[in-house]
Amino acid sequence: MIQEPGLLEGLTSTRAIRRFRPEPIPEADLATMLFAATRAPSGSNRQPFRFLVLRNGPAAVEAKALLGTSFRAMWAKKRRADGYDEGSGVDRTSAKGRMAAAMQEFVDGFEQIPVVVLACLDRHRAPELHDGASIYPGCQNLLLAARALGYGGVMTMWHAIVEADLRRVLGIPDDVFLAATIPLGRPVGGHGPVRRRPLSDLVYEEHWETSAPWAVDPPGTRFTRAGPPRPKRTAPDSSG
Amino acid sequence: MIQEPGLLEGLTSTRAIRRFRPEPIPEADLATMLFAATRAPSGSNRQPFRFLVLRNGPAAVEAKALLGTSFRAMWAKKRRADGYDEGSGVDRTSAKGRMAAAMQEFVDGFEQIPVVVLACLDRHRAPELHDGASIYPGCQNLLLAARALGYGGVMTMWHAIVEADLRRVLGIPDDVFLAATIPLGRPVGGHGPVRRRPLSDLVYEEHWETSAPWAVDPPGTRFTRAGPPRPKRTAPDSSG
Repeated sequence: MIQEPGLLEGLTSTRAIRRFRPEPIPEADLATMLFAATRAPSGSNRQPFRFLVLRNGPAAVEAKALLGTSFRAMWAKKRRADGYDEGSGVDRTSAKGRMAAAMQEFVDGFEQIPVVVLACLDRHRAPELHDGASIYPGCQNLLLAARALGYGGVMTMWHAIVEADLRRVLGIPDDVFLAATIPLGRPVGGHGPVRRRPLSDLVYEEHWETSAPWAVDPPGTRFTRAGPPRPKRTAPDSSG
Repeated sequence: MIQEPGLLEGLTSTRAIRRFRPEPIPEADLATMLFAATRAPSGSNRQPFRFLVLRNGPAAVEAKALLGTSFRAMWAKKRRADGYDEGSGVDRTSAKGRMAAAMQEFVDGFEQIPVVVLACLDRHRAPELHDGASIYPGCQNLLLAARALGYGGVMTMWHAIVEADLRRVLGIPDDVFLAATIPLGRPVGGHGPVRRRPLSDLVYEEHWETSAPWAVDPPGTRFTRAGPPRPKRTAPDSSG
């Protein structure tokens, strides 16, 4: 039996899950997750979010096969581009090597993932960059609700290269935005604290790139390695 | 003392809060909220999200004045466009009339809102529609963390017409995406179950616009009024 975490604990310890046990997700749990997803906010509460669930019906099997092909191709491309086949990437004991192995396992077994949710935005106007404000909060609620019930998932965009075929198989109109593909299942391994950059890099006050002095990571926080140092950009004139 | 809700309860009962008590938010609570916001996922865990916090420093006062002007203009436009000055909109006892009064109070008092967070996306490539996947989950985490600590807020895009001036005052570079303006504070009124369309409208399985039979709203769910019926669109050919 899974102990449901408190709200704050859930927000700070929901990991991207890419390794799944094969067992299906009971429909009552799926309904709870999708109910939570659809309680997220959207612009003017228009609720343009639509969640298309793929389990093991005939269209789901066909769609998952398309997605598996796409995910394997996208990972192969990233694997080369990000140097996973050289240096620490080929050392299975390094963090990079473990990530490479986990990603390969994820894409190789894609068709066996119990549930795949396509998060869609049913538009009422021409695309705008902030359209995502009406679909990605719902995706986050879905992942958090999965966490609450002992499941996990990950938000991906790796449907890109089979999108036209997916639309044909599932009848998704061309003007609907396919915002994310979210595999879900019972995790191998578990959730727990996530790694991020220090808050001083991410939280500003009064001015861009001015760290908020009170934004201090709690004791025990684990960090991602800092990226390459980036020169501060020349900001717009702020003399006004 | 606020009782922190469980994760699922938090996800399903976080309302948009637009009426705030004047008291400031203690820095320790702000730090907790921003920590939770930055635990949200982003593409390849690149963490392009930056949260610029405005309280009552000189730049914050100037920025809030700009935002207040913008919010009042945006609401005035919406008030006209959506018919809030006619029919039930002028009846203070109707849902529409209450919404109009609450929105007017929100924008009129904007400058007194204790904290305003600008959610920004520090790009590493040309804009894409799914960029929002790396900033709006963090915005949702921020709103949920506020809920956990007894605060509330709302995600808005009403900074649009003062965006150039905001960038100048706060030094936000032109290539940073200003994704949302999020006022935060102690709510007048409270959180609670939210209204949405029936799950049968929002959750599909196997095919677009085919309701998932197991996606049933729990007893006691409150619904938004259905929008105008929309003819089903002609879907792409699904014979393949």
